[in-house]
Amino acid sequence: MSSSTVGQVIKCKAAVSWEAGKPLVIEEVEVAPPQAGEVRLKILYTSLCHTDVYFWEAKGQTPLFPRIFGHEAGGIVESVGEGVTHLKPGDHALPVFTGECGECPHCKSEESNMCDLLRINTDRGVMIHDSQTRFSIKGQPIYHFVGTSTFSEYTVVHAGCVAKVNPAAPLDKICVLSCGICTGLGATINVAKPKPGSSVAIFGLGAVGLAAAEGARISGASRIIGVDLVSSRFEEAKKFGVNEFVNPKDHDKPVQEVIAAMTNGGVDRAVECTGSIQAMISAFECVHDGWGVAVLVGVPNKDDAFKTHPVNFLNERTLKGTFYGNYKPRTDLPSVVEKYMNGVSFNID
Amino acid sequence: MSSSTVGQVIKCKAAVSWEAGKPLVIEEVEVAPPQAGEVRLKILYTSLCHTDVYFWEAKGQTPLFPRIFGHEAGGIVESVGEGVTHLKPGDHALPVFTGECGECPHCKSEESNMCDLLRINTDRGVMIHDSQTRFSIKGQPIYHFVGTSTFSEYTVVHAGCVAKVNPAAPLDKICVLSCGICTGLGATINVAKPKPGSSVAIFGLGAVGLAAAEGARISGASRIIGVDLVSSRFEEAKKFGVNEFVNPKDHDKPVQEVIAAMTNGGVDRAVECTGSIQAMISAFECVHDGWGVAVLVGVPNKDDAFKTHPVNFLNERTLKGTFYGNYKPRTDLPSVVEKYMNGVSFNID
Repeated sequence: MSSSTVGQVIKCKAAVSWEAGKPLVIEEVEVAPPQAGEVRLKILYTSLCHTDVYFWEAKGQTPLFPRIFGHEAGGIVESVGEGVTHLKPGDHALPVFTGECGECPHCKSEESNMCDLLRINTDRGVMIHDSQTRFSIKGQPIYHFVGTSTFSEYTVVHAGCVAKVNPAAPLDKICVLSCGICTGLGATINVAKPKPGSSVAIFGLGAVGLAAAEGARISGASRIIGVDLVSSRFEEAKKFGVNEFVNPKDHDKPVQEVIAAMTNGGVDRAVECTGSIQAMISAFECVHDGWGVAVLVGVPNKDDAFKTHPVNFLNERTLKGTFYGNYKPRTDLPSVVEKYMNGVSFNID
Repeated sequence: MSSSTVGQVIKCKAAVSWEAGKPLVIEEVEVAPPQAGEVRLKILYTSLCHTDVYFWEAKGQTPLFPRIFGHEAGGIVESVGEGVTHLKPGDHALPVFTGECGECPHCKSEESNMCDLLRINTDRGVMIHDSQTRFSIKGQPIYHFVGTSTFSEYTVVHAGCVAKVNPAAPLDKICVLSCGICTGLGATINVAKPKPGSSVAIFGLGAVGLAAAEGARISGASRIIGVDLVSSRFEEAKKFGVNEFVNPKDHDKPVQEVIAAMTNGGVDRAVECTGSIQAMISAFECVHDGWGVAVLVGVPNKDDAFKTHPVNFLNERTLKGTFYGNYKPRTDLPSVVEKYMNGVSFNID
């Protein structure tokens, strides 16, 4: 697409979800030009995350249709709206479902990535600038999803949600960094922060859990204990550094007791990547007193309650949660891409 | 008492608790010489802590009588047992209810003070060395309390539970550092770690809470919000740095919502010093998302459950607990005493 598209509506293909749970339909959509503070991206690669499926099923949330899903992607900037200075046409970029306005207390805090303006919003289907959609089909607005909607050849994203990355990095590999991989990797590297030689339990060996295990391996943990109800996952998990495996189904006692018995009182760190409330409680209770840190990553159900005896805290355990691995998308993603380019394997090949 | 007492049984006065809830009786007790790894202290000053009262009442724990209570004290080393090298007769010392063996994983960890050997044990009434008491009255053993039993002119303590302090420090003032003051002060300084200019909520304005507030003041916090059901405590609390006050009884909505409204979304740090489970939950839920840290200090009831929605963690809040303010008694207490000598006011005058 040449620069002649700048300022023009682009017609392209997109996978449109017309109704909850119904097959996506490839349609020709019109993509309006980016407004102030926005970027229009040509999406080259997009992957599928369970969160797309969850909101497509629309069980338990307000349904918002028709909508274009997709939020793990890599692309190239086609044009930018007024006031956008950190991106220009031709830049390689990863759109992210959460952003960085750069101005709010969260963006100014070293500890938080939960931007007040651009924090993930699954209910909003429009752009912040004018509360309109940039997608339409014959005049009918098509809603956005978490500000990314990457199941389209072109999409419009708030500039604060776009990380500029090294153009030498293969977009078909690094597109997965815009969601699950960073979520798991950062949970371990940025939040749990295991020391070299330490022990780490990873609850759930899906994509996020495997990335969390990889984070433990990169951090130099020596014992990386995978916990999953599906024993066949252990083999694949070995590639990500998992070197011991516990299936809670194989034991009569609670898994936290099994792990404590294996580790002389508990692991140094635990990372919970399932979203199961029972796994969250087990992950917390399996860390060693005195110094253990558990990190929650998985998204729970609305009515779940985390419940434990307060003495488990008083015995000097720490419980933290993380969102997107505590990475600030614009600030931190480029350096994660550089790590990959410099040979740190995230097993995304 | 001259050095002629070394190796001899000492007869002295002690306040003996013969039965749960019954007045203590001043008796002449015999105090045996210290065995290997033990120290006999002449107690010059001792204060009364609620924990003494709690175990004297013996509601909800196994009663162990006759017993000598007391655990906040200052004294002078009378003699030492075999193998004790860090203390000698004449040293000024604070006995502490928890200790440092120096050898276990907790002692070797920079993060923990929960020594495997000498961690507080409220059920044990005897010395670890030989499972005997060092106190007796006409041959009848009198049990120890948390390894200190300072309601006696002389007591025998494990050397790992004795901090050697600057002899120029007034023992009548610094004796309170051996329990509540360090617990509250360390909860803030060592665990919550508020930054200069930050906001801190202190739940409970008893001795521990006031020390926690003092820790916030020393750390440079600018807003120190005291939370207590007794409004008259605010006046005294001002001396310890508290500059705003909330009485949950004055509000219709939960105190965490009151505090969030006062602080644009939540305080940077909260320290819970009451032991009430509801206060623990409020303290956690009143910290700001993205960076807030809550620290639990108060001792809960046996059947309490800490309960919150896991999303409160996923929004990047941290919950930690602490024991004795994370101070290692032998390693850290001398420097706390030095801070006092160098003019850092702990309001213990």
